[in-house]
Amino acid sequence: MSKDKLYVIKVGGNVIEDEQKLSVLLDAFHGMTEKKILVHGGGKLASKYAQQLGVEVKMHEGRRITNQATIDIVTMVYGGLVNKKMVAALQGMNCPAIGMTGADADLIRSTKRAPVNGIDFGFVGDPEEVNVAFLQSLLQQDLVPVIAPLTHNGAGELLNTNADTMAGVIAKAMKEVYEVSLVFAFELPGVLEDVEQPETVIRVIDQNNFSQLKAEGKIHSGMIPKLTNALEAVQAGVAQVCICHFGALENITQANFSNYTKIIL
Amino acid sequence: MSKDKLYVIKVGGNVIEDEQKLSVLLDAFHGMTEKKILVHGGGKLASKYAQQLGVEVKMHEGRRITNQATIDIVTMVYGGLVNKKMVAALQGMNCPAIGMTGADADLIRSTKRAPVNGIDFGFVGDPEEVNVAFLQSLLQQDLVPVIAPLTHNGAGELLNTNADTMAGVIAKAMKEVYEVSLVFAFELPGVLEDVEQPETVIRVIDQNNFSQLKAEGKIHSGMIPKLTNALEAVQAGVAQVCICHFGALENITQANFSNYTKIIL
Repeated sequence: MSKDKLYVIKVGGNVIEDEQKLSVLLDAFHGMTEKKILVHGGGKLASKYAQQLGVEVKMHEGRRITNQATIDIVTMVYGGLVNKKMVAALQGMNCPAIGMTGADADLIRSTKRAPVNGIDFGFVGDPEEVNVAFLQSLLQQDLVPVIAPLTHNGAGELLNTNADTMAGVIAKAMKEVYEVSLVFAFELPGVLEDVEQPETVIRVIDQNNFSQLKAEGKIHSGMIPKLTNALEAVQAGVAQVCICHFGALENITQANFSNYTKIIL
Repeated sequence: MSKDKLYVIKVGGNVIEDEQKLSVLLDAFHGMTEKKILVHGGGKLASKYAQQLGVEVKMHEGRRITNQATIDIVTMVYGGLVNKKMVAALQGMNCPAIGMTGADADLIRSTKRAPVNGIDFGFVGDPEEVNVAFLQSLLQQDLVPVIAPLTHNGAGELLNTNADTMAGVIAKAMKEVYEVSLVFAFELPGVLEDVEQPETVIRVIDQNNFSQLKAEGKIHSGMIPKLTNALEAVQAGVAQVCICHFGALENITQANFSNYTKIIL
């Protein structure tokens, strides 16, 4: 028997912190008729609240150094404000959303990251295990999980976790029971040859042209970990991995649509 | 066939915002072997964050007037910080907790409150409907719902909702499928004849002595809505309603324990 399709969608902070973009995203996401999971970020809003609360924002290579005050703030912003607003908005469209963090129902258990090259990231977690059976039970009840980038270590601690990484581990875990597509949705139509020219979408990226595009400087900074993550998911057997515009989520499920970046082996 | 027992426990902000009390509460709650749901408050912490963020705290007869900035704060504090910390702590004890608001899985839908005597409460909801089937499916999977005092109106809006009221409507809705006990856990062993004397627990309150105790001024302020709520639940057919110390949750399930206040018809 062939497996059901499941879309795991990751969407970042730039989109969800802008009311208009959020509304376009939620409409497009709601329009997807297959089974689906939404994983979101919220970093900019967390930084805004940190500043308002007088908590210093410390980043290292794009990753947030998360002390006690900071884990409280990201728990409030990711697990509370962003997650519940999205859930209420989806419910308002009759999309049966359920918001969760990795701690809820032991959804994603992680290991607290040990200091890397003398940098202590604090309350940051690297995912180890996904509760596939519980996600499956939600999907079988036609619910739509909306997942905040927080995990727990099984010893009572919440841990800040990269949303791209979470989407990747969820996709990899769920491929045992579904034919999984992992979709990174962002503000551009795909990875661009020339970031100023939206019509220069690179349709296909594999290990070879990824190395070349990096060498040419066409892929840099935040796009490198995203694509590394994407390539890893393909290697791990996720059926389809792609990067597309957040407004194109409905199109991506259709065979005749090709204006996005597909990541292949 | 007799129904399974279900305990719906409400615990307020004074307990959960104190690390030591929270730990005693969670231990006692974890020790309950029957099926259970925890409903929590968090008002003091919300007020603390509101002050830090420069948002004025406005109350009317103990109820929070909830404008846009305030609903964002209570969503962060109740749905994020308080809820997820409790879930992670319970998971750390191997208690399979899952945190939710009323918006998640359409758990509790409410009506936005119309202005009362010229007082506009803003984003405040009065619960209308409980998703009994979903709560039942969680309980059947041996999960332990931990519910924040937020609901939604089905039109995309989150609404601030009194936690006592939420515990009451959940208990009333769940009595269709379980033999429900509704427990209000707080810092005293029960309702006291003399608030200075913890040994003066009033063992039984019914409609008659409630009126008398009110007239004598022994029951006043916040205890009045709590007991009105409790009496309503008994009238609606909730099998057992009681008020006890948060550390006595394990005892309350045992027949030989009587040091608490029982509310009867």
